[in-house]
Amino acid sequence: MGYTKLVVHVLRKKYGRKLEVVGLLKASINAELLKDSIEALSTLVDEGKFNFAEDGITFKAVDPANVAMVTFSLKSDAFSSYECDSEELGMDLTKLSDILGMAQANDTVGLELDEDAQRMVITFSGLTYAVSLLDVSTLRKEPSTPKLDLPAAVVMSGGDFRRAIRAAEKISDHIALGVDKNVLYMEAEGDTDRVKFELTKDQLISLKGSGVRSLYSLDYLGDMSKPISRVPEVTINLGKDYPVQISFSIADGSGSAEYLLAPRIESD
Amino acid sequence: MGYTKLVVHVLRKKYGRKLEVVGLLKASINAELLKDSIEALSTLVDEGKFNFAEDGITFKAVDPANVAMVTFSLKSDAFSSYECDSEELGMDLTKLSDILGMAQANDTVGLELDEDAQRMVITFSGLTYAVSLLDVSTLRKEPSTPKLDLPAAVVMSGGDFRRAIRAAEKISDHIALGVDKNVLYMEAEGDTDRVKFELTKDQLISLKGSGVRSLYSLDYLGDMSKPISRVPEVTINLGKDYPVQISFSIADGSGSAEYLLAPRIESD
Amino acid sequence: MGYTKLVVHVLRKKYGRKLEVVGLLKASINAELLKDSIEALSTLVDEGKFNFAEDGITFKAVDPANVAMVTFSLKSDAFSSYECDSEELGMDLTKLSDILGMAQANDTVGLELDEDAQRMVITFSGLTYAVSLLDVSTLRKEPSTPKLDLPAAVVMSGGDFRRAIRAAEKISDHIALGVDKNVLYMEAEGDTDRVKFELTKDQLISLKGSGVRSLYSLDYLGDMSKPISRVPEVTINLGKDYPVQISFSIADGSGSAEYLLAPRIESD
Repeated sequence: MGYTKLVVHVLRKKYGRKLEVVGLLKASINAELLKDSIEALSTLVDEGKFNFAEDGITFKAVDPANVAMVTFSLKSDAFSSYECDSEELGMDLTKLSDILGMAQANDTVGLELDEDAQRMVITFSGLTYAVSLLDVSTLRKEPSTPKLDLPAAVVMSGGDFRRAIRAAEKISDHIALGVDKNVLYMEAEGDTDRVKFELTKDQLISLKGSGVRSLYSLDYLGDMSKPISRVPEVTINLGKDYPVQISFSIADGSGSAEYLLAPRIESD
Repeated sequence: MGYTKLVVHVLRKKYGRKLEVVGLLKASINAELLKDSIEALSTLVDEGKFNFAEDGITFKAVDPANVAMVTFSLKSDAFSSYECDSEELGMDLTKLSDILGMAQANDTVGLELDEDAQRMVITFSGLTYAVSLLDVSTLRKEPSTPKLDLPAAVVMSGGDFRRAIRAAEKISDHIALGVDKNVLYMEAEGDTDRVKFELTKDQLISLKGSGVRSLYSLDYLGDMSKPISRVPEVTINLGKDYPVQISFSIADGSGSAEYLLAPRIESD
Repeated sequence: MGYTKLVVHVLRKKYGRKLEVVGLLKASINAELLKDSIEALSTLVDEGKFNFAEDGITFKAVDPANVAMVTFSLKSDAFSSYECDSEELGMDLTKLSDILGMAQANDTVGLELDEDAQRMVITFSGLTYAVSLLDVSTLRKEPSTPKLDLPAAVVMSGGDFRRAIRAAEKISDHIALGVDKNVLYMEAEGDTDRVKFELTKDQLISLKGSGVRSLYSLDYLGDMSKPISRVPEVTINLGKDYPVQISFSIADGSGSAEYLLAPRIESD
């Protein structure tokens, strides 16, 4: 074999379409914090619109089946540096996760808007990614947050929450969450088997309310429980056959994530 | 999105069939010991009948292809607490393994018969599983143990046994076990390749007998070698073109497991 | 169940075909070094011809698509012991890798030619594998090494090389390697996204040349980067739209491996 006989592959360059974004964004942030933030969103949606404002970022989206909603915010002081005009930027969350998988936990990630090329430029430890933005007009509209009056509130460790969800997944595809007489219970029923997980008030960080119970899909709670498993405290607000609100703070309180999940109705 | 527009899933509760079990069982046991015990059985069969008696548990079953048999016993003193009338309880071993995968090694697992619901109630660290029993009359009949006179006996480490089996799996689907002149050998032959593993008497814990050799399926020995890999001592009783008996004790001698595996016949 | 009712499987022994190999080979070598050597080859080809000579081993092969070539040598002093007449031995690299997976890193592996059976006998820690040789006449002819004049040379850590390749794999199936003004760059372009990795001269072990750039397939570089990730130094020789030569030494300089990879042509 001489190299002249080596097979030659022809490569076609492809160009992304141009979008109309005008503005300034230049920020840097701890890699692990950014990874965790993106994961909290990507468990529910593959893509969405980030609102970059002077005081930080917000994100709100409903999953494709309209069963769950995520609301997320990260204040500018969670960033190492943050400089921003007002911007709405559509991003592919799956791609972002994949790229951030290359970063070490303690890397600093730079984010900068490349206005000409309509890309987000992401830099860390020698790597520079230029990721095309999504056309905001093609993304689903941001949902409005429903006003809920949930009578019970429980604060527990994220690890305990994840464990109860995993235990239920062994035998069912749905789980009931309820509070009764100073006890939080999570119970699931399969075709022939049942599982119950209980935490009394003194095993919880706090408990308020009683006599509530709703049924939820384990598909959704299973996905949500992954980012939740890493947080020390998660707050669960419950009602009777009502949506559950699951919230936790990130970045030492500079940010927050909240899930809202519609109930299934129990039929007897 | 308002929550009132959230999709509502309707869920049908399903009820298990009722069985006729009457009796008492209330016991607790170390989680790792119970996991290891179940794994020793589930390598061969998916379900079977446990005999709970006053002095402990026994289990005996033949695999669906009638090639291998497992005999298992665990005395009451292997349990942290044990209270039992005589009971025959059919259980799904795959489901038990899956559920016990939620337990930490040093958890204590409670077992209690729920007579009304015909379920086994399994508890550990806040979780309560109620697992339906199998109808004993639908399970295969317990085999009777054949009376074997096996002239050779070798005691070796479970780790060495596993290693020899894995080495043979690289090139074949069967293996010959034999003892000759104070050497235990395991050899396998593929279409074009061969492997031999030998341990002399001083590399073994003990060796007795000579001039025996039989051929076995690696499918079965591969499965059996997984629980065996964790025991310090396994006893192998061999004959000439005869079943092999592989036994080991568990729970510091309060229990034992024994496999019997039929030989393949070598044709020349 | 009595053992007499156990199902009996009949086994047919199969014999390998006889080859005409005459000669002597008796050597021993550290297991990890042998594993790493085989992996450097098996990333490109599944089988090939080893040339065993008095002063050591050489191997040269082109991949099935004629895009890449590997040249490998290991001098006799990389072995713990080495005794050899001249031999050409065809070997199945996938099988060798699989078998060596059973060895511990610090095992000593014995290699000996079994002339009667036309097999390579491989021994380590109690195991003896006899692996049939491949008929050398049925293997692809050894390629001749092309004479290349590559103006740029960069020496970098194998870990950095692997990292750049993985970063590019996230968004493309090809990558450009280039040197410009004392900077090594690796850049990839997907349908809409781009990534660039740069190392300046002082971040490299050494850098020579400038103004070169060629495009390569990430399929190949991805495979090659796995064994490369473990070496402290890899040398990359580059030209303009020319093959790349990637070389590293093994066994403290007693051996070497070199990949040659044809470029893709960039079209604008």
